[in-house]
Amino acid sequence: MLPFARIGIVGMGLIGSSIARAVRARTPGVAIAAHDACPGVRARVLELGLADCVADTAGTAVIDCDLVILAVPLGAYAEVARAIAADLAPGAIVTDVGSAKQCVAASLAPLLPPGVALVPAHPVAGTERSGPDAGFATLFEGRWCILTPPPGTDPAAVEQVRAFWSRLGSRVEVMDAAHHDLVLAVTSHVPHLIAYSIVGTAADIEHVAAGEVIKYSAGGFRDFTRIAASDPTMWRDVFLANRDAVLEVLGRVSEDLAALQRAIRWGDGETLFRRFEASRATRRAIVEAGQDVDAPDFGRTR
Amino acid sequence: MLPFARIGIVGMGLIGSSIARAVRARTPGVAIAAHDACPGVRARVLELGLADCVADTAGTAVIDCDLVILAVPLGAYAEVARAIAADLAPGAIVTDVGSAKQCVAASLAPLLPPGVALVPAHPVAGTERSGPDAGFATLFEGRWCILTPPPGTDPAAVEQVRAFWSRLGSRVEVMDAAHHDLVLAVTSHVPHLIAYSIVGTAADIEHVAAGEVIKYSAGGFRDFTRIAASDPTMWRDVFLANRDAVLEVLGRVSEDLAALQRAIRWGDGETLFRRFEASRATRRAIVEAGQDVDAPDFGRTR
Repeated sequence: MLPFARIGIVGMGLIGSSIARAVRARTPGVAIAAHDACPGVRARVLELGLADCVADTAGTAVIDCDLVILAVPLGAYAEVARAIAADLAPGAIVTDVGSAKQCVAASLAPLLPPGVALVPAHPVAGTERSGPDAGFATLFEGRWCILTPPPGTDPAAVEQVRAFWSRLGSRVEVMDAAHHDLVLAVTSHVPHLIAYSIVGTAADIEHVAAGEVIKYSAGGFRDFTRIAASDPTMWRDVFLANRDAVLEVLGRVSEDLAALQRAIRWGDGETLFRRFEASRATRRAIVEAGQDVDAPDFGRTR
Repeated sequence: MLPFARIGIVGMGLIGSSIARAVRARTPGVAIAAHDACPGVRARVLELGLADCVADTAGTAVIDCDLVILAVPLGAYAEVARAIAADLAPGAIVTDVGSAKQCVAASLAPLLPPGVALVPAHPVAGTERSGPDAGFATLFEGRWCILTPPPGTDPAAVEQVRAFWSRLGSRVEVMDAAHHDLVLAVTSHVPHLIAYSIVGTAADIEHVAAGEVIKYSAGGFRDFTRIAASDPTMWRDVFLANRDAVLEVLGRVSEDLAALQRAIRWGDGETLFRRFEASRATRRAIVEAGQDVDAPDFGRTR
C-alpha cells in the first residue's frame, strides 16, 4: 500500500486538482489537505469536494502531511517554501510537479528544514486548460513522470514518490535534472514557445485580417493554438527557469528552419522532400509508443 | 440541383477520394470517373467502389465530364493538363484543390483549350493521412473552400463551382489568388514547415536519444508531429509554388521568435507573459468560430 497517510497539495490548478482527484480515486483512505493562494480557487475546491481540508495558508495545509506536493508556478516556489518550512513534519517528503528541474533543488533545498527529503518530480501530462475545474483523475494514466532527486537524496524517499506516481497510473523514470531540462526543452518548452510565437505573428500580419487567420485555421494553424492557450504564468516561469537549455535548443531550431528556408528560396525540392519524409517516421513512433492517439486529426469529432 | 451530371477526378488520395465519397453521399445520380497515376491506388478505388469508372489515363477519365477536378500535387498540374487537354468536353469546367493558388492559373490556363473555364479552388480541410483509404465523406463539412477565379472568368462557372462545394457541406469564399497565398502561408504553410523542421531538429540533438523525444512527447511536441506526418510530395510542391509568401511570413516568424528568445536571455518575464496571454484569445476565437473542437487536448481520448 501507499506509504502516505496524509498528502498536502499546494496549488490546486489543472495539475494539483488532478492529483487530488486521482488520489481520491486510486488511494481511498489517504487524507488530502489543500491550499491555493487564490481565495476563489479555494472556494471552488471546497465546492468540488476535492480535499478533506482546504487551508487558508500553505503552512496549515502541510501540517502532519507525510507527502507535500508543490503544484504552483516555478516562480512561486521560494515563497511557498518559506511559508511551509516551519510547519513541515519531521521526515516529510517534499515533491513538486514543475516542468523545469535544475532550478527546483537550487531554490527549495536551502529553504527546507533538516530531516525533510526533497524529491523533485515532473509528470509529463497536461492539457491547455487551467484551474481546478480543468483537472481530471485519469490525467496521468500511461504518461511518464520523471523524478530528479539531487545527489544524496534518501533512496527510500525516492522509492516512495515513485510508488505514489505509479499508483496514479504513471510510468516513472529517474533522471539527472540537467538532462531532464534538455530533454524537456526539446519535447515541451521550445514547442510551446514556438506555438506562442507563431500565434502572435499571425495576429500581427497587416495584410491578413484576424478573422481570416481564424477562419482558415483548419489548414494546420489550429494545432499550434492549442498549446498556445496554456497558462501564461506557468510558462513564463518555465522559460525563465530553464533558460540555458531553451536557448540552446532554440538556436538549433533556428538553424534548421533557416536551412529549409534556403531550400525554398533556391527551389531545392529534394532537400524539402527528404526532411519531410523523415518526419513521418517520428510521428509513427510516437503513436506506436502510446503517447498519442492514432486517429486522424487527433480524433477530432469533425 | 447540381449543374453537373458527370464529374472527373484526377488524383484519388485523401482529398480526391473524400470528394468522391461526398459526391456519392450528397449528390446521388451524379456519375464519377476517376484516375490516379498509381496503379495500386486505381485498384483500391475500384475495390472501394468510389467511382463509376476508374480510367487508366487522365484523358479517359475526363471524357464527357462537365466538371473536372485536379487533386494531384501542384508539381503534377502541367503534366495532367497536357494529358487531358484534348479530351476535355467543350464547356467543361476545370477546378482543383491545391493549397497554393497563384501558380494554378499560371500553369494551367495556357494549357487548357478555349471554351473550358478554369476555377481554381482550395478546400481548407484535410488530415495528416494520405491515400484513398484515408478519405471520408464528411471531410469538407463546415470547412471553408476558397475559390480564386482569375480576372475574366465566366461568373456562371464560378457559381457552379460554388454550388458544388456548398453541396459537399463547405462554406465558400471567393478571393484574389495572391491574397489567398498570403493568408494560407500564415494559417497553413508556415505552420507545416515549422512542424516539419522542429521534428527534424528534435531527432538530431546529440544528447537527447530519439526514444526520449518520443517518450516525453506528451509535453507538447506531439501536437507538432501530427501535421509533420502529412504527404511530403504535396508539401514540397506547396512550398516551391508559394515561395514568396512563405518566405515573407517565415521572416516575420523568425523576428518574433528572436524577440522571445531575447526576452528569455535577459529574464524579461513581463514580455513573455504579455505575449503568452495574447495567444489565448486567438485560441478562444478559433474554437468559437467552429474551426476546432472545444474539448481539452483536442478531445484525445486519453
